[in-house]
Amino acid sequence: MAVLFVLNRYNASDWSDMMRDRAPDLDVRLWPDETGNPEDIKYVVAWNPPPGELAKYPNLKVIFSIGAGVDHLMKDPDLPAVPVVRVVDPDLTKRMTEYVVMNVLLHHRRFRLYDAQQTANAWTEHSQPAAGEVRVGIMGFGTLGRDSGVILRDLGFQVAGWSNSRKQVDGIESFAGESELDGFLGRTDILVSLLPHTPDTDRMLNSALFAKLPQDGALEGPFLINAGRGKVQSDADILTALNDGTLKGASLDVFEEEPLAAGSPLWSHPGVVLTPHVAAESSPIAINDYILDQLRGYELGEALSNVVNAKRGY
Amino acid sequence: MAVLFVLNRYNASDWSDMMRDRAPDLDVRLWPDETGNPEDIKYVVAWNPPPGELAKYPNLKVIFSIGAGVDHLMKDPDLPAVPVVRVVDPDLTKRMTEYVVMNVLLHHRRFRLYDAQQTANAWTEHSQPAAGEVRVGIMGFGTLGRDSGVILRDLGFQVAGWSNSRKQVDGIESFAGESELDGFLGRTDILVSLLPHTPDTDRMLNSALFAKLPQDGALEGPFLINAGRGKVQSDADILTALNDGTLKGASLDVFEEEPLAAGSPLWSHPGVVLTPHVAAESSPIAINDYILDQLRGYELGEALSNVVNAKRGY
Repeated sequence: MAVLFVLNRYNASDWSDMMRDRAPDLDVRLWPDETGNPEDIKYVVAWNPPPGELAKYPNLKVIFSIGAGVDHLMKDPDLPAVPVVRVVDPDLTKRMTEYVVMNVLLHHRRFRLYDAQQTANAWTEHSQPAAGEVRVGIMGFGTLGRDSGVILRDLGFQVAGWSNSRKQVDGIESFAGESELDGFLGRTDILVSLLPHTPDTDRMLNSALFAKLPQDGALEGPFLINAGRGKVQSDADILTALNDGTLKGASLDVFEEEPLAAGSPLWSHPGVVLTPHVAAESSPIAINDYILDQLRGYELGEALSNVVNAKRGY
Repeated sequence: MAVLFVLNRYNASDWSDMMRDRAPDLDVRLWPDETGNPEDIKYVVAWNPPPGELAKYPNLKVIFSIGAGVDHLMKDPDLPAVPVVRVVDPDLTKRMTEYVVMNVLLHHRRFRLYDAQQTANAWTEHSQPAAGEVRVGIMGFGTLGRDSGVILRDLGFQVAGWSNSRKQVDGIESFAGESELDGFLGRTDILVSLLPHTPDTDRMLNSALFAKLPQDGALEGPFLINAGRGKVQSDADILTALNDGTLKGASLDVFEEEPLAAGSPLWSHPGVVLTPHVAAESSPIAINDYILDQLRGYELGEALSNVVNAKRGY
């Protein structure tokens, strides 16, 4: 029995080394060089594997994603029909909340304007609405969205969530389903997307959607924050909306293609706060221990947690 | 009976116009042009009046500060011996919390580093400690400090407060008095000052104090956030500490002299987030209504709230 790390990313060996350190009894291997006999592989720990790769292991029982999202797996037409476990980790949730709260506050508090003034050595005060005058709307109101929503509520913002099923959270308005989407967008000054990428959400953050956000809120125009998945947005439509004023600003951690091309005009747009998909990188230790706990339990015959619903895609 | 607005600031007439709108029965006047007979003046609403000015009104009964701080009044050696009421306003508290939480997150999340990368069109990820590994210390742990502290605690930070008297807040460590200051500083990665300016706190944020902050925390060096009063800090010592690495970065909303001189090297220091004393500008409407409520109550013989203790200076 072996655990194979198939991580298509910059620090793959840090991950396999960590599990070796913390579970010296396990046969831990790092793809591709240490793969060995494919029949040995019972578990795969995966990030963005080449399509078809995971079909090569005939005795594979469980696939662990090292992220909350599993679109990097679901895009593989030959993905083996074994349980896929995603990370649902308090540490990752807290990090996402840090990112969302920081970026809501950045736009609310006119950070890009004050930063430009700092660059110009200019001391100029501007009027500032209170949080209570500003409406934040969170699309994708699961574990991550609710954690962010509660902190934003406590900061005084008017918070609403939109998701497939209605959620009950004190002091937060809940919108559900396609029929309530326009009502949700029409009351949203700062739109936060934490949506997973599925066929339903593909390029959902586009010109038609941005046009439904109000222009007359306390911030004098809507802002977009996408900390979920890049393929939920149209990069081109975001740029158009920023240029014609449909969006007043945006915080983008994810993009249709990553890394974002060095020539993209988004890098230098004055209303954009851009980060390289780091909103909710969980601590590798926390993820490692989460995966290890599930793997140990599975070996003892316990049920897996947070198994992806293949039909919904998350 | 008249109310005189003595506001040494950019938008003085907005303030007097607002009270006229909301209390048409009151005789509201704007210094200096509309002062009229000094004997008419029963109330002064003040911001940074020229020393000696308020001594000119023989029938003055109450001075209202339009800010939470009253150092702009206490520096007047000829201040009349009447009650001085400061603003303690939930709106102002929430705004200060917005500023503090945003700036703690900016430093925690390496904002200046990622912003420089954005300017360079560079897609590079960096390791990121969790909030739970980072220790925030709030100096001045009154109403404002506690409100910020609770949100930061809920975000997962290790929060402590330091003040003259010990405070009880769930999940927040309380340090009190001079004898516990070094212990407080020694466990603080991000130092937030909300201290009032008094003889005891004058230039307290100086080289000697910065040297007591740890260099080995999860953020690899301490950060300073001053959203309280400028004269609590030494601008020169902050610059020295930033240059020699004693401080890794700073958010400064206040300065020894304001506006900050256009030639100050603080404007362009790469580790500094600088704003023009706007951290907790309360909404003028909220302050106006707070002052009006107190004034109406005083006319009816009720006690004033939030009267400054002249000995403590706040």
